Amino acid sequence: MRTIRIAMAQINPTLGDLAGNRDKIIEYIKRAKKLGADIVTFPELAVTGYPPEDLVLKPQFVKDNLRTLREITKATTGITAIVGFVNANKHIYDAAAVLDNGKLAYIYHKMLLPNYGVFDEYRYFTPGDRYPVLSVKGVNIGVNVCEDIWFADGPARLQSLAGAEAIVTLNASPYHKGKGRERTKMLSLRAKENKVFIIYVNTVGGQDELVFDGQSMVIDPKGRVLASGKQFEEDLITMDIKLPKEARPTPDRSSEQLLEKHRDFIDIVRLSSRTSGKKKPLPAPRKEKPYSLCEEVYHAIVLGTRDYMRKNGFKAAVIGLSGGIDSSLVAAVAVEAVGKENVTGVFMPSQYSSQESREDACELAENLDIEILDIPIHQTFDAYLRTLREAFAKTGTDVTEENLQARIRGNILMALSNKFKWLVLTTGNKSELSTGYATLYGDMAGGFAVIKDVPKTLVYEISRCANRLAGKTLIPRRVMTKAPTAELRPNQRDSDSLPLYSVLDPILKAYVEDDKEFEEMLRMGFDRKTVERVIHLVDMSEYKRRQAPPGVKITPRALGKDRRFPITNRYKSY
Amino acid sequence: MRTIRIAMAQINPTLGDLAGNRDKIIEYIKRAKKLGADIVTFPELAVTGYPPEDLVLKPQFVKDNLRTLREITKATTGITAIVGFVNANKHIYDAAAVLDNGKLAYIYHKMLLPNYGVFDEYRYFTPGDRYPVLSVKGVNIGVNVCEDIWFADGPARLQSLAGAEAIVTLNASPYHKGKGRERTKMLSLRAKENKVFIIYVNTVGGQDELVFDGQSMVIDPKGRVLASGKQFEEDLITMDIKLPKEARPTPDRSSEQLLEKHRDFIDIVRLSSRTSGKKKPLPAPRKEKPYSLCEEVYHAIVLGTRDYMRKNGFKAAVIGLSGGIDSSLVAAVAVEAVGKENVTGVFMPSQYSSQESREDACELAENLDIEILDIPIHQTFDAYLRTLREAFAKTGTDVTEENLQARIRGNILMALSNKFKWLVLTTGNKSELSTGYATLYGDMAGGFAVIKDVPKTLVYEISRCANRLAGKTLIPRRVMTKAPTAELRPNQRDSDSLPLYSVLDPILKAYVEDDKEFEEMLRMGFDRKTVERVIHLVDMSEYKRRQAPPGVKITPRALGKDRRFPITNRYKSY
Repeated sequence: MRTIRIAMAQINPTLGDLAGNRDKIIEYIKRAKKLGADIVTFPELAVTGYPPEDLVLKPQFVKDNLRTLREITKATTGITAIVGFVNANKHIYDAAAVLDNGKLAYIYHKMLLPNYGVFDEYRYFTPGDRYPVLSVKGVNIGVNVCEDIWFADGPARLQSLAGAEAIVTLNASPYHKGKGRERTKMLSLRAKENKVFIIYVNTVGGQDELVFDGQSMVIDPKGRVLASGKQFEEDLITMDIKLPKEARPTPDRSSEQLLEKHRDFIDIVRLSSRTSGKKKPLPAPRKEKPYSLCEEVYHAIVLGTRDYMRKNGFKAAVIGLSGGIDSSLVAAVAVEAVGKENVTGVFMPSQYSSQESREDACELAENLDIEILDIPIHQTFDAYLRTLREAFAKTGTDVTEENLQARIRGNILMALSNKFKWLVLTTGNKSELSTGYATLYGDMAGGFAVIKDVPKTLVYEISRCANRLAGKTLIPRRVMTKAPTAELRPNQRDSDSLPLYSVLDPILKAYVEDDKEFEEMLRMGFDRKTVERVIHLVDMSEYKRRQAPPGVKITPRALGKDRRFPITNRYKSY
Repeated sequence: MRTIRIAMAQINPTLGDLAGNRDKIIEYIKRAKKLGADIVTFPELAVTGYPPEDLVLKPQFVKDNLRTLREITKATTGITAIVGFVNANKHIYDAAAVLDNGKLAYIYHKMLLPNYGVFDEYRYFTPGDRYPVLSVKGVNIGVNVCEDIWFADGPARLQSLAGAEAIVTLNASPYHKGKGRERTKMLSLRAKENKVFIIYVNTVGGQDELVFDGQSMVIDPKGRVLASGKQFEEDLITMDIKLPKEARPTPDRSSEQLLEKHRDFIDIVRLSSRTSGKKKPLPAPRKEKPYSLCEEVYHAIVLGTRDYMRKNGFKAAVIGLSGGIDSSLVAAVAVEAVGKENVTGVFMPSQYSSQESREDACELAENLDIEILDIPIHQTFDAYLRTLREAFAKTGTDVTEENLQARIRGNILMALSNKFKWLVLTTGNKSELSTGYATLYGDMAGGFAVIKDVPKTLVYEISRCANRLAGKTLIPRRVMTKAPTAELRPNQRDSDSLPLYSVLDPILKAYVEDDKEFEEMLRMGFDRKTVERVIHLVDMSEYKRRQAPPGVKITPRALGKDRRFPITNRYKSY
């Protein structure tokens, strides 16, 4: 029996904070050494954070990242560390450095570069073409990066044929609802196909629109999960991987041909053999119980919000509380993210605000134990109307007056933000933003859009989940049951302008996320007139989305860089 | 002597308007036939408009575009038309259809796909691998698309070796200042290298952040421009290309090897021979005199603004006039774009506005002969302050109050927009937006940012140019000479917060456009403290730019999708 002790450092780097990331990486290397690990692995682009976007086009940034890697290298005496960084020679690569006993032993270049969805990797990187197999303490280990592992004919296959018994894969795999399950299924398949262990280390943390959920894991050659790390938290997972004494079975004839064809591209890398003394045994590998889908989304938006604030230097947040469910959930998330003492709610009543709304906003604030300001908007609204009276002479009341109210609220929140350095969290959900049922510079004004990618029906689910997780009522029951309203004119209801959310959300999923054809949507059972109306609303409101603040991606297709639509667009699909 | 008559249809398609684009393409085919053209060529993706972005991911959109191409095919009896469209089989291609005498004769797939700058072509398209050479009336013609022609070892080379005497290239080449000259130089080189005519047809028109400048041209094998079309306007350029009776010289030995290697990828396409009767002679080919660089930029922002409005269904525009040069230039551009009767200026004085500002705004309005509204903001400002008094107790005056004023103005403009369906044109320039010297939801509020990519020093130049082109004073002389100020507090000057624009703009170019390293910038002679301050301002204001409206790209690197920076970014280069 051969044994190798691996440590997966599931860290939360900060984008561009090269010194901070270096210190964190070195700290985890030390912890791994203390635990007697032979190898410690880090996420994709751990040195820079992911995705560095156009920073990679700055030669100075790339150089500074290379210098940072050299500093990390020195900390690897007595251990092998595999660290993601940006490599540069004539080209630029998304790379994994194998640092061994204080020296740079090998550099792997990511082969499969995603250029879809939120990814732009062809914009920056050149694909690699070499297949390393490391030999560490008599164990053969393939190394690759993220997208590489998602394809059956990716490098893991050839590395396995070339003798790898385990594959270390470095990842920055963005979260969406259920992504962990997809990943586990895929990794299990890949392990079985290649009869290898898979050591999957993922980054964790929020970066603008993205959240990385961690959940690093080890899979055995039978496809079983042996260990798995925390979700949405930093973690260090250490375990002994036990391999049979005998070599793996010889590849079959067709494999040999494949191997022959790529022979020149395989690098066998023998790492320094270290005398590892008798090691303290480890406890049984940890398998964190995965969250339910609902809990997952809740933790994703909490972490996304927390990290956006922390990494951008905001200590406190301010939220306009309407007494509705969206702002209630956002406030609950904010409290979880940065603490109740750092969250201020603002109730901004107009002549159309109901007593019920005030009660609900106040009850929420009480439940969350946060401060709530009461700043009425009618005086300012009147001032605008007086000022505009002449210009608006001979016109009737329309959506203008509704938007004005929303924009006064936006201004008040921004004024509080400017004065007290509070980050304004906006409260619009995906159903609203998709249909343009939101006021630009009004309720859309703010720095971070917490539930931007959460459809309204899911907002209800997550709200119930938040209460459940808290073990008490945070979001008042009445908020969960009353009819949604923007309260911008008398007796207004969302359902005056939009289909019921239970009808709207599946149509939006089909159109916005799944790019379904019009006739296909009718065949799915949706009403023709309703589908036409929804498509029209989505198509006409792209200009609003373009000016929306970033928010956490939690679906397979979010409304930011995940979905790039022209504003000027006369295409009609119905 | 062999002669072939070609027509270059430099059209302005509307993105997604498949029926409209079809009708326009058919109209130009008819015009080309009337002029006796053997071949009429259209721009890249003429059927869909460029760039269609994620519309291409909608299967229905791709199908509808294929149907549109079939409709166009029928209109090609008696002529050969080369038309850009999206092709689809197992993959999706940026393609050129060769439509010949009512039939689809060939489909070329673009080989070199740009995935840098504003381009995301790997997101959508698969590169082609076949090199067509058409044989039309005994003349051999290679066809390729845009990026293909920019590289010496692109398809033009092999097509020439395979016998092509002329290369037809279909383009959607976005404008930046001086791009026409770069293009002409490159095409001249390419023509000489390959000893071919180059028939370069470019699209024209505005599409969100991009403007296409047309300027289609024909280059002879000696690299001389034989004909060139209009800039920033639709055009049809027709000319007879005269080729020697003898075949072109045999390729040299190394070329033959190259040719041999790719033999299987060369398609020789013989098109239907048509009896072209005696043709009416054409006048000598037209060579439009190119604009000066200043005029170019002016026309680019005019067309960008006009097309954004027209293609998005806006008839009229509204602009906040401060009496400063930015809003003055934007108003002049708007008048040129949509006519003085469709432009309204709004002067929104506060307690800090000078009499001079009012006079200058009024003089501008008079010069442009546009309506100007006078809507003071102090009442509304007072209402906000009263409303916020309690919340702001024990705090001093700071940037909050300045931003509030800017945001009131933004709200007033948006209210006018909502009420009268006017598009709000914002007036911020690139120097301001780069440094964040702009108020989010304030002066940044609006649908289109006309001079977003124009540095302040260039704003002055273009303003002088606008006056020159008008043959009279549009932008008052005093506006050109007084010190820039936001007038948000007493005696405020831009130079209180920013270096002089003559100092700032070259630093911004080095940092924002050219990605220079810090030390490099010092070596360029910039002051260390100033460079540090500018870098800090640029880095800290990414969040504002993310919420800015689109505007016309006129530099090699604009602030929209041309420069993709993370908001969360702790990288410091100094």
